[in-house]
Amino acid sequence: MTETPTSVLIDGIGTLVTNDPELGEGRTGELADAALVLDGGRVAWAGPRDRAPDADTRVDAAGRCVIPGFVDSHSHIVFAGDRSREFGARMSGRPYEAGGIRTTVAATRAATDAELHARAASLLAEAQAQGTTTLEIKSGYGLSVAEEERALRIAAGLTEEVTFLGAHVVPPEYAGDTDGYVTEVTGPMLDACAPHARWVDVFCERGAFDEEQSRRVLRAGMDRGLLARVHGNQLGEGPGVRLAVEMGAASVDHCTHLAAADVDALAESGRGAADSATVATLLPGVDFSTRQPYPDARALLDAGAVVALAGDCNPGSCFTSSIAFCIALAVREMHMTPEEALWAATAGGARALRRDDVGHLAPGARADLVLLDAPNPVYLAYRPGVPQVAAVWKNGTPLS
Amino acid sequence: MTETPTSVLIDGIGTLVTNDPELGEGRTGELADAALVLDGGRVAWAGPRDRAPDADTRVDAAGRCVIPGFVDSHSHIVFAGDRSREFGARMSGRPYEAGGIRTTVAATRAATDAELHARAASLLAEAQAQGTTTLEIKSGYGLSVAEEERALRIAAGLTEEVTFLGAHVVPPEYAGDTDGYVTEVTGPMLDACAPHARWVDVFCERGAFDEEQSRRVLRAGMDRGLLARVHGNQLGEGPGVRLAVEMGAASVDHCTHLAAADVDALAESGRGAADSATVATLLPGVDFSTRQPYPDARALLDAGAVVALAGDCNPGSCFTSSIAFCIALAVREMHMTPEEALWAATAGGARALRRDDVGHLAPGARADLVLLDAPNPVYLAYRPGVPQVAAVWKNGTPLS
Ligand SMILES: [Zn+2]
Ligand SMILES: [Zn+2]
Repeated sequence: MTETPTSVLIDGIGTLVTNDPELGEGRTGELADAALVLDGGRVAWAGPRDRAPDADTRVDAAGRCVIPGFVDSHSHIVFAGDRSREFGARMSGRPYEAGGIRTTVAATRAATDAELHARAASLLAEAQAQGTTTLEIKSGYGLSVAEEERALRIAAGLTEEVTFLGAHVVPPEYAGDTDGYVTEVTGPMLDACAPHARWVDVFCERGAFDEEQSRRVLRAGMDRGLLARVHGNQLGEGPGVRLAVEMGAASVDHCTHLAAADVDALAESGRGAADSATVATLLPGVDFSTRQPYPDARALLDAGAVVALAGDCNPGSCFTSSIAFCIALAVREMHMTPEEALWAATAGGARALRRDDVGHLAPGARADLVLLDAPNPVYLAYRPGVPQVAAVWKNGTPLS
Repeated sequence: MTETPTSVLIDGIGTLVTNDPELGEGRTGELADAALVLDGGRVAWAGPRDRAPDADTRVDAAGRCVIPGFVDSHSHIVFAGDRSREFGARMSGRPYEAGGIRTTVAATRAATDAELHARAASLLAEAQAQGTTTLEIKSGYGLSVAEEERALRIAAGLTEEVTFLGAHVVPPEYAGDTDGYVTEVTGPMLDACAPHARWVDVFCERGAFDEEQSRRVLRAGMDRGLLARVHGNQLGEGPGVRLAVEMGAASVDHCTHLAAADVDALAESGRGAADSATVATLLPGVDFSTRQPYPDARALLDAGAVVALAGDCNPGSCFTSSIAFCIALAVREMHMTPEEALWAATAGGARALRRDDVGHLAPGARADLVLLDAPNPVYLAYRPGVPQVAAVWKNGTPLS
C-alpha cells in the first residue's frame, strides 16, 4: 500500500457522510455541500465546501455522495472449489449429493498456496471495487494444524484483520470426537496459528461446538493474545450470545435467533465503556441465500445494542461480496433505516473489529472512502443490485 | 448501432445458455465447452467448441459463461426529479409529505428535452452495462398530449420497444374525471402518440383505470395499430389479467395478486399458438422496494403460463436497473429455479415483447449476449448484488 505524497481536496460533495455527529446531522454526521481533504493517508479536514482549505490536487465530486469505506468484519474467502450447483439445487428443492462444507474443506486442502491466494485476492479486489476498504478474513476450511496455519498466512498477506477459526466445524478426522478436536485446536493448532492472527473465533451452535467447548477455544486464543469473536445463534437459540458477552468478545455474528435475554445482554455490554460493547453483527446475505428468517434488528437497535452489518462472503451459505446489497436487505427485510444500515456497515463494522481509525471520516481517520454515483446514501438501498461505486480511496490512495 | 464487419468466434465458453432445447440441455439449452460465432450482427453458429468453424477474430471466454442478453420488457426511465428521500421515509415508517407519482409528473413536465434524454440515456447505458440488450421504455409521466408525445419521442431515440402509457394515472387537470381523461387519451393523445410507439399500455387497477376504461384505452391504441400490454393485479385482485387475455395483450405485468381463474386464463392463452400467449411478467424489484408480497410464480409456471421477469425501473416503486438482482429475488422469494429465472429474463422477456429475434442464441438470432465473470448461470442468483458482467455484445458489437 502506497500513500499519496500530496494532499487532495475532494470538492463539490453533494452529501458527505462522516459518521461523526459533531461534524454533521444525525448519527451518521451528514453534511450537504461538503468537502474533504486527504493528506498522508488520513483525513486532514472535513466540512462545508465554502470553508475548505487548499490542497495540492483537487477532485470534483460533482454533487455526488461520499461515504466512509465499508468495514466488512466477516468473510471466509480463503477456499477452493465450486458449490454453485449445490446452491441451485437447494434453492430449487432438488436433492444434491456430495455438498456441504466438507466439499469445501476437501477442495481447499487439495489446492496449492498460489491457487488459494489468487482466489482470495480476486475476491478481495472485487469487494474493494464495491466499496469495502477493510475486510476481515477467517480461516476455517483447513481444520488441521498445517492447513489452518496456511490459510492464515494467506489471509495475512491480504488484510490486517485475520481471524483463526479452526473451530469452524469438526473435520472428518475427528468425527464423533469433538472434544478431541477442541484439544487439538486449543493446543498445537493455536500454537501454530496465533502468531498470524489478530482474532480467535468459534462456531458456537448445536451440531458444531457447545458452550463449554466454545469457551475453551476462546480462552485458549485469548491466552495467546488474540481477541475474541463468536459465530452464534444462527440456526437456533443457544449460548453463543451470552458466551460472547461473558468473554468480552468484540462481536457475536449472525444473531438470527435471539432470546429477550440475549438482546438485553448485548445492550448491557455497551453500557459501561461503549468501546467494550459486544457488537451484534448481522449477516442478512446468509439469511437471503439460505432462505432463513432475518434477525430482529429493530429489537437490538431499540434496546441500544451496537449493530454491525457484514457480508459473510463464503461459498456455502452466502457468496456475495456486496455490502450495498446487504444494506438493501437490512432496510427491506430488517426495517433498519437507510442511515442505520449505512452506519452499521461502516462504523458498526469498525466497532466489531475494535477499530477507531476506520468507519468514519473525522480528521485523523484513515482516508478510506467511497464516492458514489448518487447524490445521497439512501441510494444504496433505493437502487438495489445497481453498481453505484464511482471511486474508492484506501489510505488516501485511489484504487484503480 | 454499427455492426462488426468481420465474424467473431467466442471460444472456450464454460457454459453456453442458448435457450434453444435443440442446441443443448433443458429448456435453457445449456451446453458445456461451447463456442459461438457472430457474423453480420447475428449468431452464425452455436455448438460444441471442438466443432466450431473458423472466424476472422477470436475472443477467449476462458471457461466463463455466455448467456443471451437480458430482455427487460418493462421500464419507465423517461422522468425527472429525485424521490430517494421519499423511499427512505417509506421504508423507515416515517411520514413524508409531497411524495408520490405527482412529484415525478411535475418534475418531468418542468424538465427540458435534453435533461430527459440525458437521464434516460444514462439509465439505458447503466442497464446495458449490466447485461440488458433490449429495454422497453414507457411514457406515463407527461399525461398531456404534448408531454406524452415528447416522452415517446425521447424513448424512440433510445429503443425500438416504445410504449404509450398515457393511462398511467389521472393527471391533476382531470382530478375526479377519469372518464374525461380517458376520452383525451383515446382521442387526441393517441393521435399524437401512436406514430412514435409500438405498444399501448394501461394501469388497470383500483384507483387508476377500471376495466371498461382500460378496455377503451387498449382498443383505441389497437385501432391505431399498436399492440396491447397491461399493468394489472399489482395492488389487489382485479380485472387486469382477464382483460389482457381477452384483448390478446402480449403481456400483463405485476400479477402480484392473482385469483385461480387468472392463473388458468394465462395458462390457457398460450395453449393454441404459443406465440400468442399473454405472458405473465413479474416485477419482483417492485415488491422488494415497496415491501409487498411476491407473485406466486410457481402457480403460474406449474399451470403452464409463460412467465417473464422484468425490472420496472422507475423512481417511485423500484429504482433498480439490475436484472441479475431480479433473478436473485425470483429464486429466493418466488421459488423459481435459476434456470427458470434466467429463461424468464431473456426468452420470457422476448415473448412479452412478441420478439423472436432476441432472448436466445440459436443461429439467426440477433447477436445480443453477455459474457459473465462466472462459470455458469447459477452465479446470477448465487452471488446477489455482485457485478458479474464481463462483456456485452449488442447486434454483434461489443459495448465498451
Ligand atoms: Zn461466518
Ligand atoms: Zn410499470
